[in-house]
Amino acid sequence: MKIALAQLNYHIGNFAANTEKIISAIRQAKNDGAELVVFSELAVCGYPPRDFLEFSNFIDLVDEAIDKIAKESNDIGIIVGAPARNPDKKGKKLFNCAYFLNEGKVVSKHYKQLLPNYDIFDEYRYFEPAHEVECLKFKGKTIALTICEDLWNISGSYLYRRSPMEHLIQQQPDFIINIAASPFSYNQVERRKEVFDYHQKKYNLPIMYVNHVGAQTELIFDGGSQFINAKGERLKQLKYFEEELAVIDLNEESNDDSHRELDKYEKIEAALCLGVKDYFRKLGFKKACLGLSGGIDSALSLVIAVRALGAENVMPILMPSQFSSDHSIDDSIKLCENLSCEYHQIPIEDIYHSFGEKLEPLFKGLPFDLTEENLQSRIRGTLLMAYANKFNTILLNTSNKSELAVGYGTLYGDMAGGLSLIGDLYKTEVMDLSRHLNRDGEVIPQNIIDKPPSAELRPDQKDSDSLPDYEDLDAILKAYIEDRLGPAEIIASGQDEELVRRSLRLVNINEYKRHQTAPILRISEKAFGMGRRMPIVGKYLS
Amino acid sequence: MKIALAQLNYHIGNFAANTEKIISAIRQAKNDGAELVVFSELAVCGYPPRDFLEFSNFIDLVDEAIDKIAKESNDIGIIVGAPARNPDKKGKKLFNCAYFLNEGKVVSKHYKQLLPNYDIFDEYRYFEPAHEVECLKFKGKTIALTICEDLWNISGSYLYRRSPMEHLIQQQPDFIINIAASPFSYNQVERRKEVFDYHQKKYNLPIMYVNHVGAQTELIFDGGSQFINAKGERLKQLKYFEEELAVIDLNEESNDDSHRELDKYEKIEAALCLGVKDYFRKLGFKKACLGLSGGIDSALSLVIAVRALGAENVMPILMPSQFSSDHSIDDSIKLCENLSCEYHQIPIEDIYHSFGEKLEPLFKGLPFDLTEENLQSRIRGTLLMAYANKFNTILLNTSNKSELAVGYGTLYGDMAGGLSLIGDLYKTEVMDLSRHLNRDGEVIPQNIIDKPPSAELRPDQKDSDSLPDYEDLDAILKAYIEDRLGPAEIIASGQDEELVRRSLRLVNINEYKRHQTAPILRISEKAFGMGRRMPIVGKYLS
Repeated sequence: MKIALAQLNYHIGNFAANTEKIISAIRQAKNDGAELVVFSELAVCGYPPRDFLEFSNFIDLVDEAIDKIAKESNDIGIIVGAPARNPDKKGKKLFNCAYFLNEGKVVSKHYKQLLPNYDIFDEYRYFEPAHEVECLKFKGKTIALTICEDLWNISGSYLYRRSPMEHLIQQQPDFIINIAASPFSYNQVERRKEVFDYHQKKYNLPIMYVNHVGAQTELIFDGGSQFINAKGERLKQLKYFEEELAVIDLNEESNDDSHRELDKYEKIEAALCLGVKDYFRKLGFKKACLGLSGGIDSALSLVIAVRALGAENVMPILMPSQFSSDHSIDDSIKLCENLSCEYHQIPIEDIYHSFGEKLEPLFKGLPFDLTEENLQSRIRGTLLMAYANKFNTILLNTSNKSELAVGYGTLYGDMAGGLSLIGDLYKTEVMDLSRHLNRDGEVIPQNIIDKPPSAELRPDQKDSDSLPDYEDLDAILKAYIEDRLGPAEIIASGQDEELVRRSLRLVNINEYKRHQTAPILRISEKAFGMGRRMPIVGKYLS
Repeated sequence: MKIALAQLNYHIGNFAANTEKIISAIRQAKNDGAELVVFSELAVCGYPPRDFLEFSNFIDLVDEAIDKIAKESNDIGIIVGAPARNPDKKGKKLFNCAYFLNEGKVVSKHYKQLLPNYDIFDEYRYFEPAHEVECLKFKGKTIALTICEDLWNISGSYLYRRSPMEHLIQQQPDFIINIAASPFSYNQVERRKEVFDYHQKKYNLPIMYVNHVGAQTELIFDGGSQFINAKGERLKQLKYFEEELAVIDLNEESNDDSHRELDKYEKIEAALCLGVKDYFRKLGFKKACLGLSGGIDSALSLVIAVRALGAENVMPILMPSQFSSDHSIDDSIKLCENLSCEYHQIPIEDIYHSFGEKLEPLFKGLPFDLTEENLQSRIRGTLLMAYANKFNTILLNTSNKSELAVGYGTLYGDMAGGLSLIGDLYKTEVMDLSRHLNRDGEVIPQNIIDKPPSAELRPDQKDSDSLPDYEDLDAILKAYIEDRLGPAEIIASGQDEELVRRSLRLVNINEYKRHQTAPILRISEKAFGMGRRMPIVGKYLS
């Protein structure tokens, strides 16, 4: 049997575009001789549709799209993901469904049984879990059709009490299909491999996996769809971060061993570029602007933006103050030249003084403090937003994960922007990615990478004046944020007690700032944003 | 049997304070002759603890608190809510548990079976549902002990496939206890009544209900704990929006009919005041500032802030521009005088010009547009944040729900602030609440209520230049946001088609702005914020 795996980039709620894309892939699959074509989870409406699912009208549009797609199924079987109404009056109103279409109509519906409801996932908010599961029969084959999480119940400590495969296997399937919407993180390829290896060894069946590709706001889907035969050989590996339609033959033996796995920073670079590109494209914007400070965060953000959008579509703006060092301006200009990128320069000192004049009667000679530092940052934020508004561009946010974690940033100042590019990279990862981008020659001037980080908001300021060494800080933050370790466990791992307590406290008391941050492109297993939900008035460790 | 209902105000993760409060209520209950004392759902850690529940260390602190509380249970039975570890290796790691403590130890644990996972609720993210439920036996009585949602499975279309009461009733309980963390909305009292009436009629048993009181960031808990006897008479009704410990006698007959239900705006006024008060108290802040424009939104916000925090703790700042009308300043000053509130005045024209000068080379004579309007708003936001930073105050946000819905506001400008006071009130509700606050004499100058709304960001601007009549707009917004109706249904209800399509489109394309808004005190069944989760790059109806 020849089967087409359709790894496509959908747009949430854009039924016209998604349906057209699906139909065009069906026609190509037919041309390529496929008897079955497989699309990913919730392909019809895009993933995650979130509370749009609560609109009956939204589900009507899904149903219309399914009808249109079914009309294309006369000479081919189609497996496509979409929400489906629950006909039972008890339980939630929808199922997360894999539709099987053939001979012009809906032949069967297969519901997802294991609904992820952790991190960025909210599937229990909308979907009733399948109460029973059954294999799909097509052309003499019995297919264990599963949806994403249905296959992920493999770890030592089980999140679920049921295992769909344990039931499906009783019907003696010929192979397993898994349709997914599994978002990228830089260790997701390995996690996925574990999942497939587990089922491979347990059932000795071929597995076909079809994932989304493309970004939906903060979530990036890397594709990585694949076909593994009954011996556990990966005979086909679709591209990462690109659309692809691949036809595989169940009986094929030849190994597609041309595939090379990407390393951590290759993956992150590709993911961030796709994230930026899709955010702009799907919102109908072309142009971006950002503030270029002379530091590593804005430099790295600019390089990613230029790779994603083109130098002609990105406007860096330099906004030096009386506290800016000469090298900040020189380094920034050099970076723009390296990227063939135009830039603007707006000194902020006069504006700063005009604020100072008006605030003087209220502040009555109180000393320079964080207020004046934040003021500079907010003047820059206001200038950038004025540029963004006037020229219909989106301001890019350049905060990194370490500073977002400890609140080392100014709300409405350097925390402003429509999308955060590197907000899921710790400062040490920002450095590593920057070095990676320079691997074939200097893009980011070496001095930007080498100099000690500084916000330059008061004379001779350095990050190290108020923050610990980033190597130590990042290790503590990762233990707390990614691994959810408590203070005792982190201290036991060898970190300084006072530093651990201070860092965790800073993370917790700055929840209010992160609440108002731009969406952050997610590249780790635990990013700030929709996948990490914390109380603001909480008192734990603070 | 004498039973104490303890309706208390907890602080999330503040184990020391919560435990002390619980123990002190236990001692008082003993003094008052109670044999059983009942605390609300997750009382030990506060509600909602959100992702703190993922920290094993957090659960250790819960267990320590339970041990301490159990020591107080020698002469009294204690029912208290707390997360409890799931001893089974399959399923989620925690249960949402009602602990029963007596004779110095944990006697039994009763788990929640129906886990709400809609709107602001995420309980399936953390908790395994009870697989079976059993009544609590104490002093010869059999008690159907339920946790909040366990009793809410009553509507025509069932959200759940199970009903805990159907199992519990088989053990012939003498009465029902429901411990809850049920957040306020202005129609919650009626919803609650429906729930109790339903069980009352079905089982003819007395019901004791203990709810949280107090606010946790955006969520406000109104208390309203009560005792209904087997005949369906409400013999005891605890206060709304206040802590209270009440001892009831199961055999009591006398009806506490002194209780009067509050009307919509009485409830909202009390809820918002408590919301502001608790936000400041639980974060350890005393002082607030806000921008006073001369319009109704900031006027209403100021009145609420003054009632919550005291006039001496609230600093309104007037920031007129060349576009401000005289009455805006006069009306604002009159309001401050009515409230005996100091104020500052900072004209923004000079700062505006200093920005204009620096932007001129970039803007090269392009016409005045939204950019310059937003610029004024952001200058004000920057001044307010400078004041807030210098004097350790929290800036209050004054946006209303109608403008948040359609994006009629400036990010980092009038959308700035740490907490939104009236962001869950449509403009028409803002007017109604303002009239309500003037019921015993003018607090808000009548001219502020009567004049046509205007942002005053260009000459002779009125909201009606770019927005429809608020009566129509609010009806459409409510149909879309609260009732989740689609365009066809809203048009069928008699609204203008073009207006409906334009309004819904505006709601959807402004998701990116709301993503960066302050937390909004929730007073309706569907507020912007954690209870409404929408894609930003979605294309549905936009």
